[in-house]
Amino acid sequence: MNNKIKAAIVGATGYAGVELVRLLALHPHVEISGLASVSFEGKGIEEVYPNFKKMNLPKLASVEDAIAGADVVFASLPHGLSEPLAEQCLASGALLIDLGADFRLESEDEYKEWYKKPFDKPELHDGAVYAQPELFRKNIKDAKIIANPGCYPTAAALALFPALKLGFIESDGIIIDAKSGVTGAGRSLTQNTHYPEANESISAYKVGEHRHTPEIEQSLSYAVGHPMKVLFVPHLLPVNRGIEETIYAKLKDGVTIDEVREAYVKFYENEQFVRIEAKGASAQIRNVTRSNYCDISVHGDMRTGTLILCSCIDNMVKGAAGQAIQNMNIHFGFAEDCGIDMLPSGF
Amino acid sequence: MNNKIKAAIVGATGYAGVELVRLLALHPHVEISGLASVSFEGKGIEEVYPNFKKMNLPKLASVEDAIAGADVVFASLPHGLSEPLAEQCLASGALLIDLGADFRLESEDEYKEWYKKPFDKPELHDGAVYAQPELFRKNIKDAKIIANPGCYPTAAALALFPALKLGFIESDGIIIDAKSGVTGAGRSLTQNTHYPEANESISAYKVGEHRHTPEIEQSLSYAVGHPMKVLFVPHLLPVNRGIEETIYAKLKDGVTIDEVREAYVKFYENEQFVRIEAKGASAQIRNVTRSNYCDISVHGDMRTGTLILCSCIDNMVKGAAGQAIQNMNIHFGFAEDCGIDMLPSGF
Amino acid sequence: MNNKIKAAIVGATGYAGVELVRLLALHPHVEISGLASVSFEGKGIEEVYPNFKKMNLPKLASVEDAIAGADVVFASLPHGLSEPLAEQCLASGALLIDLGADFRLESEDEYKEWYKKPFDKPELHDGAVYAQPELFRKNIKDAKIIANPGCYPTAAALALFPALKLGFIESDGIIIDAKSGVTGAGRSLTQNTHYPEANESISAYKVGEHRHTPEIEQSLSYAVGHPMKVLFVPHLLPVNRGIEETIYAKLKDGVTIDEVREAYVKFYENEQFVRIEAKGASAQIRNVTRSNYCDISVHGDMRTGTLILCSCIDNMVKGAAGQAIQNMNIHFGFAEDCGIDMLPSGF
Amino acid sequence: MNNKIKAAIVGATGYAGVELVRLLALHPHVEISGLASVSFEGKGIEEVYPNFKKMNLPKLASVEDAIAGADVVFASLPHGLSEPLAEQCLASGALLIDLGADFRLESEDEYKEWYKKPFDKPELHDGAVYAQPELFRKNIKDAKIIANPGCYPTAAALALFPALKLGFIESDGIIIDAKSGVTGAGRSLTQNTHYPEANESISAYKVGEHRHTPEIEQSLSYAVGHPMKVLFVPHLLPVNRGIEETIYAKLKDGVTIDEVREAYVKFYENEQFVRIEAKGASAQIRNVTRSNYCDISVHGDMRTGTLILCSCIDNMVKGAAGQAIQNMNIHFGFAEDCGIDMLPSGF
Repeated sequence: MNNKIKAAIVGATGYAGVELVRLLALHPHVEISGLASVSFEGKGIEEVYPNFKKMNLPKLASVEDAIAGADVVFASLPHGLSEPLAEQCLASGALLIDLGADFRLESEDEYKEWYKKPFDKPELHDGAVYAQPELFRKNIKDAKIIANPGCYPTAAALALFPALKLGFIESDGIIIDAKSGVTGAGRSLTQNTHYPEANESISAYKVGEHRHTPEIEQSLSYAVGHPMKVLFVPHLLPVNRGIEETIYAKLKDGVTIDEVREAYVKFYENEQFVRIEAKGASAQIRNVTRSNYCDISVHGDMRTGTLILCSCIDNMVKGAAGQAIQNMNIHFGFAEDCGIDMLPSGF
Repeated sequence: MNNKIKAAIVGATGYAGVELVRLLALHPHVEISGLASVSFEGKGIEEVYPNFKKMNLPKLASVEDAIAGADVVFASLPHGLSEPLAEQCLASGALLIDLGADFRLESEDEYKEWYKKPFDKPELHDGAVYAQPELFRKNIKDAKIIANPGCYPTAAALALFPALKLGFIESDGIIIDAKSGVTGAGRSLTQNTHYPEANESISAYKVGEHRHTPEIEQSLSYAVGHPMKVLFVPHLLPVNRGIEETIYAKLKDGVTIDEVREAYVKFYENEQFVRIEAKGASAQIRNVTRSNYCDISVHGDMRTGTLILCSCIDNMVKGAAGQAIQNMNIHFGFAEDCGIDMLPSGF
Repeated sequence: MNNKIKAAIVGATGYAGVELVRLLALHPHVEISGLASVSFEGKGIEEVYPNFKKMNLPKLASVEDAIAGADVVFASLPHGLSEPLAEQCLASGALLIDLGADFRLESEDEYKEWYKKPFDKPELHDGAVYAQPELFRKNIKDAKIIANPGCYPTAAALALFPALKLGFIESDGIIIDAKSGVTGAGRSLTQNTHYPEANESISAYKVGEHRHTPEIEQSLSYAVGHPMKVLFVPHLLPVNRGIEETIYAKLKDGVTIDEVREAYVKFYENEQFVRIEAKGASAQIRNVTRSNYCDISVHGDMRTGTLILCSCIDNMVKGAAGQAIQNMNIHFGFAEDCGIDMLPSGF
Repeated sequence: MNNKIKAAIVGATGYAGVELVRLLALHPHVEISGLASVSFEGKGIEEVYPNFKKMNLPKLASVEDAIAGADVVFASLPHGLSEPLAEQCLASGALLIDLGADFRLESEDEYKEWYKKPFDKPELHDGAVYAQPELFRKNIKDAKIIANPGCYPTAAALALFPALKLGFIESDGIIIDAKSGVTGAGRSLTQNTHYPEANESISAYKVGEHRHTPEIEQSLSYAVGHPMKVLFVPHLLPVNRGIEETIYAKLKDGVTIDEVREAYVKFYENEQFVRIEAKGASAQIRNVTRSNYCDISVHGDMRTGTLILCSCIDNMVKGAAGQAIQNMNIHFGFAEDCGIDMLPSGF
């Protein structure tokens, strides 16, 4: 055990926290050294999640106790709570990988507009990086705080970045129609996620108001070199896991769909976790479920001059815990797919 | 029974046919006089659909036998097969209500482009009307052939027609992101609709190529007075029934969302089967399932100047059998909601 | 409207209450005169259940106001609350149809054992009847209080009664393995019925402790003429609606399965809502969903001398609201299937 | 790669085959050297299962080519086809791990009765062992042919063996009510597994006739030392994966449930993959999905003197591919959990 790094998980009994436990428990270079839970402190995690029976995991503890001695702290907390935790981690020399929203937006103005509060500790934000590995990998190695991307922004940015960067599409008028499995809404009980009301239905929510919007725009602005806006509309999909985004953008004159698809294959040819569908196939959730893959299909409608991208991830893996581990691997110099190379099962 | 009209169903063992049986069996002014099925001729329909045990329905017969003496013939057939049937109906004086595609497109050129064949009997098409009751009701009374709208076009046209007619949106750049339950793919077995491969997934299909596209465009062209194009992308949704379409259109300058919503309420105030959601609510499938209602919610994103409409129907009822009965009611002068006034259950 | 009876629903925003609204709204001999809801008094029911938009239903009111002037009061309340309501109904001359448990058990001892409290108003219980129409129809006409059977007991008693009555099986050793859709757990939020935790799973609950056990035993005791016990184990099934019970009983010597099946067909030949599957078919939920039917299949295993019965109902219709209306129809002399003759759809 | 064993999979495009690919691809001591598929020979497996894109797996080949040079051959074939394959494997010195039925039953008479054919190559059966690791581990090391247990028998035998072995229950009158996810029915298309007909339903099938019955009986006979019979009734459950079996048995006089539960904990204390639920909890599918675990809960009903066991596995992992790998690990001396130590996710 002595050549393993110690990892603590704060917010361990939320769905993202549980998913970190599930994956980190098998990571060859990691020892789970602490689990923190406000709601269940003092219990065994297997009392809350009986799927973890007979696993010998650390007891659920206070944040203080859980992060003591950790080399890396994963946090999955409501917004506003990661900034104070970041300060503790900096003090103790631990890397913070934050699965929440506190450090994702670089612009405090944007943060204020969407979250209705300022940065509480603006001085910390300089050490933080927005860590979408396939797009901004070089920033991750030396970061002190890693802002792990949101689930929807991961699927959106991986799909749109190449087309914008390579100049295939206009930067205005982009529409992202997103569908997410119900785990995306978390463990807390709501009427909308009560089985008989979520099952056999679908509906849009937070139309044009979802806080992942500025995060998507931030990534894409790097592709085009100037601020840009997108329209993002999420839907609650009656599946447990997975996000599918169908994305619409105006093709520039003369661009062909085959040309775009080939450019995508090339753009991601060295990226293990991004896969481009062959012509005629559509990305589908079942091909990525419970894996760290992002599948993207490239389509077009020449009648209206529209590029159509379908992008699928597992919201809990590539959209949360898996990508956080990918970022940890990069930061600590492990193989990037270490502990997250599960093949998707297809059913 | 003697003051009831006689109704025959051709294609009675397909999903739309079965749904017609289910609803017509309770219609106070209708007697089901014949059921035709190529695949199961001679059997009882309860042998194919055991949900119909103890119902005393007519045996499955040949088309000839099933339609003999009928006042109205409902047909749910693959395209190309309704034209010869229409000829038979005209000869016998029966009204044909066609749930297939043969008579939906008024332009033979459009039909050729999308269906790769000409009209076989172009002389019949003059007597046919495209029967979206809420938009083109006056044509239905005297029609000889009623082309019942497709499921996706019903949800799309009801949602977009008012905004186009009233000049709230541009007619170019409209995008329809549609999700349909698996009954929309019918009873035939395919790998995509095999339970383990449809369940817990979603994917787009026939991107930009679905044959409902010209049908939607035809209806909307009547709203604006000139031909127009839309981009239509359907998805296979893991539910049995229901369609949700999220529709994006460019708002004209100065138009507000509240103004649009109020205009929609007014536009449909006398339409029993179209309901506009209050501000803040999104249309959802579970509120219309197994009913003839269409729920529409009106949203906007002023950052990008976009009107967003969510439109939900049950694909088998308002999108097929229910609307066909609505058209029959109009044609024969029955109360328009007769036999199709079921309240949706919400779960 | 003047020849319609007035019906009030107390507990109108629970799932059973909502289902009563859905069905009674179309009943030709009923006017819904009042809806009571403790949680949402003063609101429109369409604010809680948007599936009821544009329906013109009475506002949610206090119990007092809702039941004023009613000829029949349907109550769907937690146990202990129907007895005081019954007193009010008796005073005002209204029939109470109670979908709760207060009046189902005839023996106060049994009630005490399973509900841990005595009858609060024992004098009312004489006027109450346990109203399983197919088994105890003659009691219903003159009842002052109708105890509507529970969902599980309905499926169990309809399946087992004939075999016991006709002496095909032993009365000891009967096992009922039951599976119920999640609406059976009601509208209240629990971790077990949170979508991601109910979906893609199944588990037994209240093993050997469910309060429907004595109710089943009470009905079956009438079949055999002496008290008897059953083992009842319910499971939470990931569907919205429907109950399937697979029931195991010891065949008496010399009894054949075909003989049992034929006797079942005969036993229920005049019962519209009970259907016996042909040899080789199994009862399945989808054949009864959203209808008032109970489908029963008769199987056997001669290696072990076991009669196996599969019994399916929709828990919200035949298991609650539909059967309550059936009882109302019988009591008031309407056609027994009035308002509840919906055909099941099969999908 | 040179210290890895070479594994071939015959029947690689069936669901069990695909699951073997998914798990073996990450096994540290295995190289997948060949994949055979009759239906798709010559294609890439990623053309049939796009979840395997970018994985660099061997092309789908003939059986001959796929098994050449293999140290171990996994076969997932319809019954009757594994015997000739076994002969080839014996000739080439490869271990055959058969996920089919050909070698599971030791008695040719039983095989004839249930499969309606004799052993084609009876001389091979001496070298075959029925490999339920937790019950018959010692036989596995030296076997030439490993008969991997069926999915239902795995859950049943692990649950019942201790109670029978330790004399807590009678060996007659045992009833197994089993529910399986739809992947259990395989990849082939049938009306019953068509999404709209499997979804939102459940039904029993092959009541008392399922071929897993004699396999369960064979294992349990070893526990009691004499032949015994069980009644086994499977149901098709609307989930992708997982089996839940609720099992009923007559308690012997004086046995308490707590005593049984404690004995179970002790019986399996050194078995990594079998977990006993604490008092009050029920085994549920979601706690084992996509893992090699079997969860068992112990309940009782003292009113009827019945022991009730709930047993859950993932039908594709512990019920097929995972257990096959567990058997391979034991045979080759790898750590028993190597490559199959995935934690279940709970959602």
